[in-house]
Amino acid sequence: MGQLTSDVFEPALLELVGDFLPSNQVTPVICCGMVGARQGWIEAPYLSVPCKPPGIGNAIGPEVKDPRLDVHILPGVSQNLPADVMRGEETQIGGFLQNNPGFDGAVCLPGTHTKWVQVSAGEIVSFRTFMTGELFSLLSERSVLRHSLVDEGWDEAAFNDACNDAMTSPQHLSARLFALRAGSLLHGLTPSKARARLSGSLIGLELAGSRPYWLGREVAIIGAVGLAGLYDRALTGVGVSATIADAEAMTLAGLSSAFVKMKEQNK
Amino acid sequence: MGQLTSDVFEPALLELVGDFLPSNQVTPVICCGMVGARQGWIEAPYLSVPCKPPGIGNAIGPEVKDPRLDVHILPGVSQNLPADVMRGEETQIGGFLQNNPGFDGAVCLPGTHTKWVQVSAGEIVSFRTFMTGELFSLLSERSVLRHSLVDEGWDEAAFNDACNDAMTSPQHLSARLFALRAGSLLHGLTPSKARARLSGSLIGLELAGSRPYWLGREVAIIGAVGLAGLYDRALTGVGVSATIADAEAMTLAGLSSAFVKMKEQNK
Repeated sequence: MGQLTSDVFEPALLELVGDFLPSNQVTPVICCGMVGARQGWIEAPYLSVPCKPPGIGNAIGPEVKDPRLDVHILPGVSQNLPADVMRGEETQIGGFLQNNPGFDGAVCLPGTHTKWVQVSAGEIVSFRTFMTGELFSLLSERSVLRHSLVDEGWDEAAFNDACNDAMTSPQHLSARLFALRAGSLLHGLTPSKARARLSGSLIGLELAGSRPYWLGREVAIIGAVGLAGLYDRALTGVGVSATIADAEAMTLAGLSSAFVKMKEQNK
Repeated sequence: MGQLTSDVFEPALLELVGDFLPSNQVTPVICCGMVGARQGWIEAPYLSVPCKPPGIGNAIGPEVKDPRLDVHILPGVSQNLPADVMRGEETQIGGFLQNNPGFDGAVCLPGTHTKWVQVSAGEIVSFRTFMTGELFSLLSERSVLRHSLVDEGWDEAAFNDACNDAMTSPQHLSARLFALRAGSLLHGLTPSKARARLSGSLIGLELAGSRPYWLGREVAIIGAVGLAGLYDRALTGVGVSATIADAEAMTLAGLSSAFVKMKEQNK
């Protein structure tokens, strides 16, 4: 998306789905996420918390040239204070609530910008975004630490230890990071351990900061298998037993739900 | 240095100083810092804390081809637990101690990898490295935040507030970072304020983590003017009145001191 200007979203979409579009009818296309951002296809203004996950009634339709297309972009959700935004996660939460209509608790959506969301009575009540995934990418790929964690290996005990350390003393984060480099230089800290420690340090910091969300609450994780598993293990370490839902499945459930609503309205 | 292999350090040095070398005598060249790292000219093994700042007696001499050169590389200092290393800062501390021989307290050397060093009885007792400067660079230049702090502006009140916030609740770091992006999207947070808040958030986190170093101690900052001033103002906010020494002057004082010792020994 970062490379597309507003006028090339339609050609980009047609390149992906054009071959599947029947020529003699109009096909609804329902979208969510950054496609509705200011730098996206067309801006779909945020709904503000507290609110239900946006539905088809909140969608914005960009003008299209191809008569086979009928495009609807679901908006994201914003929060005034502390200032925060999401685009895409609200639709995954909508999908999750389809399957778990009475859910009352915290939804964690790990990723580049991990969201912790308080959900109650079918509404998104409040949320907070943590830059955990982006910090991990920057530090593992672009910082001096990249020399110390070159492989894809993993050490579960190192992850757990780092997670605990970060929750206990979050103020040591930036010193703990450099200790990975020093440990590699002085004590032969292995790349697998260093990688797991980096991940544990950042996820532990996030769990320390998101404590009001998960403490004593029902928790669901919506994420890709590997990352959701990491968060699950970190949460297990603090006595939280989370439900896991697949991110892609929840996105599709949220979009499908909007589609079904649209068909019902058009009847 | 990252682009030099071991065998091209001598040509690189000659390119810089060759024109100043008298042809009829041997000129001593005293170096410190990453030139003595494993990936440098020749590895100068670390001295281990507690130790005096390394002097000429600890220097390693690489073989050179040019008969006008007599090169000495001062080693860095390491710490076993927590694992930590420095190269260059120990020489600046040596220079500082030349001017302040009785100094007993904490020396802060802000930079890409900021060091907090406990100095007592002329020795480096212990130290801790914080990745504050590198985090600032990565986040301001390569993360999603770069869109929110495009200029070089500055807002002192925003810096102070962010510093206080980070010291009070270091566990919110990664959420506080994303709030800069959200604040810019939702509330028109200016690039100057966002930039100062980012800096304050990271320096505040460091001050929270380095508290055992500065609390109730005499504190000296060895740094470039702008950065040293930032740290000074952050420390003033927690009631610490620091002495400031210029980084380049301290490096030269440390190297000069090693040179003087060498001349005395050769007499």
